[in-house]
Amino acid sequence: MNQPRRSACPVACTLDLIGDKWTLLIVRDLVLGRQYFKDFLASPERIATNVLTDRLTRLMDAGLVQAYPSEERVGRNAYKLTPKGKSLLPILKAVTDWGLQHIEGTSCGMRPKSGPESAET
Amino acid sequence: MNQPRRSACPVACTLDLIGDKWTLLIVRDLVLGRQYFKDFLASPERIATNVLTDRLTRLMDAGLVQAYPSEERVGRNAYKLTPKGKSLLPILKAVTDWGLQHIEGTSCGMRPKSGPESAET
Repeated sequence: MNQPRRSACPVACTLDLIGDKWTLLIVRDLVLGRQYFKDFLASPERIATNVLTDRLTRLMDAGLVQAYPSEERVGRNAYKLTPKGKSLLPILKAVTDWGLQHIEGTSCGMRPKSGPESAET
Repeated sequence: MNQPRRSACPVACTLDLIGDKWTLLIVRDLVLGRQYFKDFLASPERIATNVLTDRLTRLMDAGLVQAYPSEERVGRNAYKLTPKGKSLLPILKAVTDWGLQHIEGTSCGMRPKSGPESAET
């Protein structure tokens, strides 16, 4: 997270945070209500354990995701988006919309439950 | 470009195309009116030549960028966004807005010239 900035451009700085193939998929999973490490591993894209650990750590360091002790599963951490993490939803929505419109065969069985009106919360 | 899809999720499929630290910066440069290989190399993030070649090839293979013979510089190719490439602008705008709002010290000296109303064209 603390690599030097490539420039002051907001695009470059945001990509330094979420510009990879996995981070927004974890955000997607969190939006869909998944909250456990095993849930993320079970997503169809099959993220590797070390990649998931790295991305969750980066998301937490950036204040986008919060870990908290699960009430349902004693001794386990659960994860949730912080308010700052939820502010990524307009990006997630733009990416989702683009894929649905321009990439044949994509489907929104995994579309976020929350609509765009909740994206700013 | 022809790697197997990770899933039918539009987020995953879109990230397979643009989920890295460089591709949207090239799209940004094109939106800003840069059109030559050397122009992209001169951007402040200092993309490496081999990475630029790889990303431009991927963007062209995906029908998002088109190379054409430059009229100004004989023997040189210039690059421009295709209509499909321009359809990425809502994603670029969401990423720009997020950076400006949430990452301190970012500035939009490099903000795309075209406003959001042209993002859908």
